[in-house]
Amino acid sequence: MIVIFKNTAKPEQVHALCESFEAQGLKIHNSEGEHTHLIGLIGDTSAVDIDWVRANDFVEDVKRVSEPYKKANLKFHPARTVVDIAGRRIGGGHFAVMAGPCSVESEAQIVEVAGAVKESGAGLLRGGAFKPRTSPYAFQGMRAEGLELLRRARAATGLPIVTEIMNTEHIPLFEDVDLIQVGARNMQNFELLKELGRLKTPILLKRGLSSTIEEFLMSAEYIMAGGNENVILCERGIRTFEPSMRNTLDISAVPMLKSRTHLPVVVDPSHAAGIAWMVEPLALAAIAAGADGLMIEVHNDPPHAKSDGAQSLTPAQFDALMQKIKGAAAFFGEAMAV
Amino acid sequence: MIVIFKNTAKPEQVHALCESFEAQGLKIHNSEGEHTHLIGLIGDTSAVDIDWVRANDFVEDVKRVSEPYKKANLKFHPARTVVDIAGRRIGGGHFAVMAGPCSVESEAQIVEVAGAVKESGAGLLRGGAFKPRTSPYAFQGMRAEGLELLRRARAATGLPIVTEIMNTEHIPLFEDVDLIQVGARNMQNFELLKELGRLKTPILLKRGLSSTIEEFLMSAEYIMAGGNENVILCERGIRTFEPSMRNTLDISAVPMLKSRTHLPVVVDPSHAAGIAWMVEPLALAAIAAGADGLMIEVHNDPPHAKSDGAQSLTPAQFDALMQKIKGAAAFFGEAMAV
Amino acid sequence: MIVIFKNTAKPEQVHALCESFEAQGLKIHNSEGEHTHLIGLIGDTSAVDIDWVRANDFVEDVKRVSEPYKKANLKFHPARTVVDIAGRRIGGGHFAVMAGPCSVESEAQIVEVAGAVKESGAGLLRGGAFKPRTSPYAFQGMRAEGLELLRRARAATGLPIVTEIMNTEHIPLFEDVDLIQVGARNMQNFELLKELGRLKTPILLKRGLSSTIEEFLMSAEYIMAGGNENVILCERGIRTFEPSMRNTLDISAVPMLKSRTHLPVVVDPSHAAGIAWMVEPLALAAIAAGADGLMIEVHNDPPHAKSDGAQSLTPAQFDALMQKIKGAAAFFGEAMAV
Amino acid sequence: MIVIFKNTAKPEQVHALCESFEAQGLKIHNSEGEHTHLIGLIGDTSAVDIDWVRANDFVEDVKRVSEPYKKANLKFHPARTVVDIAGRRIGGGHFAVMAGPCSVESEAQIVEVAGAVKESGAGLLRGGAFKPRTSPYAFQGMRAEGLELLRRARAATGLPIVTEIMNTEHIPLFEDVDLIQVGARNMQNFELLKELGRLKTPILLKRGLSSTIEEFLMSAEYIMAGGNENVILCERGIRTFEPSMRNTLDISAVPMLKSRTHLPVVVDPSHAAGIAWMVEPLALAAIAAGADGLMIEVHNDPPHAKSDGAQSLTPAQFDALMQKIKGAAAFFGEAMAV
Repeated sequence: MIVIFKNTAKPEQVHALCESFEAQGLKIHNSEGEHTHLIGLIGDTSAVDIDWVRANDFVEDVKRVSEPYKKANLKFHPARTVVDIAGRRIGGGHFAVMAGPCSVESEAQIVEVAGAVKESGAGLLRGGAFKPRTSPYAFQGMRAEGLELLRRARAATGLPIVTEIMNTEHIPLFEDVDLIQVGARNMQNFELLKELGRLKTPILLKRGLSSTIEEFLMSAEYIMAGGNENVILCERGIRTFEPSMRNTLDISAVPMLKSRTHLPVVVDPSHAAGIAWMVEPLALAAIAAGADGLMIEVHNDPPHAKSDGAQSLTPAQFDALMQKIKGAAAFFGEAMAV
Repeated sequence: MIVIFKNTAKPEQVHALCESFEAQGLKIHNSEGEHTHLIGLIGDTSAVDIDWVRANDFVEDVKRVSEPYKKANLKFHPARTVVDIAGRRIGGGHFAVMAGPCSVESEAQIVEVAGAVKESGAGLLRGGAFKPRTSPYAFQGMRAEGLELLRRARAATGLPIVTEIMNTEHIPLFEDVDLIQVGARNMQNFELLKELGRLKTPILLKRGLSSTIEEFLMSAEYIMAGGNENVILCERGIRTFEPSMRNTLDISAVPMLKSRTHLPVVVDPSHAAGIAWMVEPLALAAIAAGADGLMIEVHNDPPHAKSDGAQSLTPAQFDALMQKIKGAAAFFGEAMAV
Repeated sequence: MIVIFKNTAKPEQVHALCESFEAQGLKIHNSEGEHTHLIGLIGDTSAVDIDWVRANDFVEDVKRVSEPYKKANLKFHPARTVVDIAGRRIGGGHFAVMAGPCSVESEAQIVEVAGAVKESGAGLLRGGAFKPRTSPYAFQGMRAEGLELLRRARAATGLPIVTEIMNTEHIPLFEDVDLIQVGARNMQNFELLKELGRLKTPILLKRGLSSTIEEFLMSAEYIMAGGNENVILCERGIRTFEPSMRNTLDISAVPMLKSRTHLPVVVDPSHAAGIAWMVEPLALAAIAAGADGLMIEVHNDPPHAKSDGAQSLTPAQFDALMQKIKGAAAFFGEAMAV
Repeated sequence: MIVIFKNTAKPEQVHALCESFEAQGLKIHNSEGEHTHLIGLIGDTSAVDIDWVRANDFVEDVKRVSEPYKKANLKFHPARTVVDIAGRRIGGGHFAVMAGPCSVESEAQIVEVAGAVKESGAGLLRGGAFKPRTSPYAFQGMRAEGLELLRRARAATGLPIVTEIMNTEHIPLFEDVDLIQVGARNMQNFELLKELGRLKTPILLKRGLSSTIEEFLMSAEYIMAGGNENVILCERGIRTFEPSMRNTLDISAVPMLKSRTHLPVVVDPSHAAGIAWMVEPLALAAIAAGADGLMIEVHNDPPHAKSDGAQSLTPAQFDALMQKIKGAAAFFGEAMAV
């Protein structure tokens, strides 16, 4: 960490601040230039609060030179994490596709879609029971009943299930869920992250719409700090000025994340663009960029879907896409987890 | 709502869709141009899911022409809402300043700051007990104990208290809080919003970092739909590309919100910029733009604050600012709620 | 185009506006609902200025339902454009790689790099002679002399050259340039676009850092409206809140552009991220997403490059990448233009 | 400037880089921590290209600690610049309003508006002759003829004129313009900036839609480096994700710019929001935030304006607003330049 002082900083102010750093066990490297006076802090600065340093009015700026995340950091954990979800592996060369409807709507629907996506080669079944909707007047999901229907679809097909949790109070309901999803809007719901850190169930953490890559990794760190190191990161589009798509898929986040963390990184092309015909090019681009998996929305009757119909593929479209995904994953060297 | 068809849409597809709208009680206005075929839906379309319509592959686009929020809508509720917080009023010509530290740190600290800000003319005391922090290694707040210290500061000064809630499970702890704050990161924590809608306590809802004004109003609608219409909106800066400040204060949101909703709108200049010296110009700009109140961070010892010290004013700085705020509020015609 | 009226609009105001539309040869479809009164305009609305309509204070909103671009529009020109650059073809199944240094620095440098990239399979040589630099104190390019060195590299290798123009006054210098580039910062330098529309030389138009896809196509339309229909579009990253990379590659822009226009679309992964090691994953992702070509920076000595060294590949790195690019282009079905 | 090395950097690589810095006259402060090795460069680093340093693959990151702009820098020029425009002064306590139509449309129009805005207290007349329009099919301005009409309006009223230049070739036409405007889209048209640096005419430089404050100051530096130090900066809204307004006024840019530069800072509320009724609250907020002036669009017949009618005030609306502006400027302590 580097602290840059204002030209007007008084020696006694700088001295007092340095003493407080030394009291925290840090060493100081002092550097005085013609126009700039700065110090470098040496040691473990992850507990130093940048805001606390900036609050001194004789400090001009503070810059971090090492990452504030540890457990998620590739530097301290150079082997790629492979997350095992009821036998399906993701990460470290293992590639998996999670597919299914945005919302669970009925037993017939979820069982039918589960069967279809399994047939096409999906490794996990996705389906929303608790739904975060912008409008209080929109369908809010089947909730506990939806979880029960997912269990039946799992029983019918053998596919592990992934579904979103929205509140700590629902954790008991998610006990036998195979992969618990934290949605983009809850990426910084820190109370939820802390509680999930106490579980052993793998967590699929989606990136917030305007979260930086560092914030994303810090949210993973919240879960890992609690003891649950089975975290899969999911890029699902960020908010930009471009109005022609729902969000902008940040494809660069895939290699950037993989250069900083050992955790697996998957991509959700369905939510990124919000348009069914764009799922294919974005899914293939994600594989080419090095993603460890994909999450794709599939519905047996998109025009009558209770949510996100506009971005859902039909089982036939998904089947055609899976042929291309398998080809691309093989071309780019990932083992497909079917 | 307007539905635009692709050139390739077949008459029977359009016909079937129109029938489904009519079954929902809507009337159809058909409009066929040389290049464009569209229909207008007449009636209450707030229950029509845009995504559901877009999911038809013969539909090119769907555009809303009326707002999806009702209870928050100025059109349907032309009188400005005045929220009463233990006798302090905000909105409809009543202006109030909420001030206090980012975090409650000790009884001495919160009582001292409370006394100071009351003396300077603040109408409410703010202070964080549950703290949403980006890092799991940073100070997480005094939690339940912090709430107790806030109560003591209230008893000592008579100032109503405003403090942030992060989880539905904590609601019982907030029973006697005067104004419950929902932070920016939880603006779309819909389970929390729904539960707060069941209370009678006024809610201070902060805008998410990348939330549109419509999404912001839809989150207020969540609370109001549950029956709690005492919602105050707080603009606190949005995320943009500009790196010199923590966030970009969206000053235009103040008049835009006030043109669309009857709810009071306040501004938090401390969080917007994250820099103490910028609080003054932004606070004055907010008053000039028509804000109904301000939320300002004040700490008795900013360099030793456990969070957000960089943006906190000292009591003396706050006192000087309050003189300017009172002058500006009087100049721009708001009654100060002291 | 749809015009939505305020509830307070008077019949005579609406009537007068409708008459003015009719005077422009448009037909009116009137639609009055319980809460909303709107009209649809039928006919060619591309000359109607949305702002002009919005300026009426009884108008609530105006929405376009057809695109404002014509010559660039895939609807009116369903065959993909193939641009021929001195015999190299781009678009409609033809794929090409443009490679070379950010800046031309010396005859030895540009001839060496040209030879190397040709050897590896690049179809065109890129090199900057006029350089747009953020700082007036940074290297500004070799200007006219740089163009001359590019000609020599072309003579030595047979590779067509692509280089950036910054000002209409320089057009005579660019007479024998094979592909003239308009940089991101000049995407809306309309005087320049108009003049380039009078030439026959193909134009490589880069997307502005915060330009929407529609604005990008409108800038292409400027060139095409002047008579020069040989335009290649280049996505090169947009500006977002993410600080870990120079820009955010908008990979979705590739399929979205190709769904709207017949013009070829290429990607510049070097400028998008600004980091050499990210060029490979982004280049492969661009191919997977359907790009018609790539623009890649290659320098014989990146640490001593006068600009953009951080994102330049060495000839050896480029050669290794080209093997992967050729494989991926073949896999995804494009004919490589070498 | 601070250079942070990767853990894998070899001593001889670091040594060689340090020698190259020393050859540029810089001193090195070395700082080796347990996890981090960095050096600080002492001396004038404004000529050091960050990209050049980053291009070394053993360098992890480079951070600037001093600003790259000099002539625009408040540190090196602590007295506020007062720009004199034909006798009207802006900056250093002098406040001025520039008003007039978006486009010059006819002699009658511009003379009428000029008379009206002068009467209301405007200090300068604005009017566009060369118009940057997104669509090639939209009105492009009266060009040279428009400049002639502005001169007549100046002769009729005595108001100095401000109008936009789009191309270096037009400079001779602008010889007697009092204040030459560079529009947002040309903020990084560096060839234009360089030529304007050779003039003595004051320049009004508008911030680009997605330009950082540092880039904005670097563009001012381009003009000043050429010898023309009469630059006025204009904040006019930035591009964000918010769709309800044309742009987002970055009100914080006013105090931030004034903390970094001695140049005057004005605000254009008309372009920021693009909506006439928002001009008033934004104009007053700009004054409260410390702006040195305002640029406001006024048209005698907004619904028939050839451009930007939606954001133009009528002369009567402008007159009412000017009374408030004068009051607010007096309240906040600026001398009005009428």
